[in-house]
Amino acid sequence: MKGKALVTGGAGFVGSNLVREILARGADVTVFDNLLLGRREFVAPLEGPRCRFILGDLKDPGATRAAARGCDIVFHLAANSDIGEGTRRTDTDLRLGTLATYNLLDAMREEGVRRIAFSSSSTIYGQPKRIPTGEDDGPCLPISLYGASKLACEGLISAYVHLYGFQAWIFRFANVIGRNATHGAVLDFCHRLSQDPRRLPVLGDGRQAKPYLHVDECVGGILFGVERANDPINVFNLSPEGATSVDALARMVLEAAGLDGTEIVYSGGDRGWPGDVPQVRLDPSRLAALDWRPRLASDDAARQGVREIVAQVMGER
Amino acid sequence: MKGKALVTGGAGFVGSNLVREILARGADVTVFDNLLLGRREFVAPLEGPRCRFILGDLKDPGATRAAARGCDIVFHLAANSDIGEGTRRTDTDLRLGTLATYNLLDAMREEGVRRIAFSSSSTIYGQPKRIPTGEDDGPCLPISLYGASKLACEGLISAYVHLYGFQAWIFRFANVIGRNATHGAVLDFCHRLSQDPRRLPVLGDGRQAKPYLHVDECVGGILFGVERANDPINVFNLSPEGATSVDALARMVLEAAGLDGTEIVYSGGDRGWPGDVPQVRLDPSRLAALDWRPRLASDDAARQGVREIVAQVMGER
Repeated sequence: MKGKALVTGGAGFVGSNLVREILARGADVTVFDNLLLGRREFVAPLEGPRCRFILGDLKDPGATRAAARGCDIVFHLAANSDIGEGTRRTDTDLRLGTLATYNLLDAMREEGVRRIAFSSSSTIYGQPKRIPTGEDDGPCLPISLYGASKLACEGLISAYVHLYGFQAWIFRFANVIGRNATHGAVLDFCHRLSQDPRRLPVLGDGRQAKPYLHVDECVGGILFGVERANDPINVFNLSPEGATSVDALARMVLEAAGLDGTEIVYSGGDRGWPGDVPQVRLDPSRLAALDWRPRLASDDAARQGVREIVAQVMGER
Repeated sequence: MKGKALVTGGAGFVGSNLVREILARGADVTVFDNLLLGRREFVAPLEGPRCRFILGDLKDPGATRAAARGCDIVFHLAANSDIGEGTRRTDTDLRLGTLATYNLLDAMREEGVRRIAFSSSSTIYGQPKRIPTGEDDGPCLPISLYGASKLACEGLISAYVHLYGFQAWIFRFANVIGRNATHGAVLDFCHRLSQDPRRLPVLGDGRQAKPYLHVDECVGGILFGVERANDPINVFNLSPEGATSVDALARMVLEAAGLDGTEIVYSGGDRGWPGDVPQVRLDPSRLAALDWRPRLASDDAARQGVREIVAQVMGER
């Protein structure tokens, strides 16, 4: 990989892992992050002549243009990733997702930067009619404001591809897991267990199940897609086959934390929280047809990711 | 129809026709319009004790809340309808479509108004893989910022249905035509002919073809859907089968204007303008299954609509 990449949200979970891999593959990186969710310590070890950190916000058009200037490609990962917060403050995903993405796209247009890879999400499918869900399946009726924002961003990107000669890669992520996690069920479990290791409260009935993708494979899939797919707009599910239940995930956390005797207490109901899609299965065959598939099945990715997060968060135990 | 309806964009093309019909069916109406595209004269004859006009903008949360207060249902038709302007000023549809819709939805949530009918568009399908295109067809990759905004609005509405107990009816319009038009090819043709009746410039090669729906039938379909469909979220194509070419439309205008000998001059290319989807066919069978279909085929609707627009715009000739 050559040239210069801008990574928005580059100090975040997927972002910081992606920055490391892009640098390893030979391109220079500008990290752009407002550190609302990202953490400077995730990228500080990578910073140097080939990796510049900018503390900035996509709501600032001037800073966004300056960051984009001279880049060959933008990896746009910045977003609110707290679905619950987006439900409580209804403009969160609109501001941090939709408006931020518009500002970025327009800054790119003005600076003549026309290649963008975007972290979308299975949430754009809402409660899908077909399982596993393929990239061309509709209708796209998201049930969270997070999903609504990801769908809005996809639409904006698609319009910029057509109207202004952009080229885009849209990756609809499964649940991504692994080191540098900034949100998600496993991190919540760790925090709860740190407070009370005898009792682990779990939202829902434990039977919700999502496909888990290890962050290394997420990064690998993104870079593979960008390097191998060359349509004006390229949309890919990024997911293993199968899924891992919340119940299994909770048990993996207890095992990795070396806890036994902890009681798992389910809040009940088939949905973890408002806007949660309880059963997600993504059809990964489009990217598989280009000869890329995750090495780890969902349970294996979850187990490895859980170990990394537990070590990082509960390491001091 | 009973109770009180708020119609955003109620002084616009479809809006003003809808207001008239809602009043005729017995409900009271609040018209909310910023008159950017709408015209007061379209609703002035309808105003009275049962029909109140508010000059207001959905970007003003206070005014929007005040307008929504006490309403039983909102018909949300306010939008930028000038796709070309949306391409030149890239934030037009974001502001007048996406942000306005978010403000409206959140005002409704705060005021406890939870029923919304929304004018979406066939443009959300982008360049569809399947023709005719059905409501569940994907992928939804719009090629105009207008289409991107309509898709974003659908996503927001869908999330509000799930998260906050809204009920929604989303109508994906074909090209709507008829009296009180504020935009569109026929109006453009009329204005050009007023300047020079000898020569009619037409964008594209004339072979682009869209389904045309007469505005009376558009209004009828909206009210039928709202009264008969009762899912939490109800999505309908609102369209006849078939389509009418731009070439045929231009000839209808010349005929209605009593012009012969006018030379039609095509700009060439298979697309009228950036973001134009040259071939649109919508599958109307979902609404037909509830026993509603347009009485007029596309060519007949176009011919009738052309006569009305020509009479209204070129009446003084």
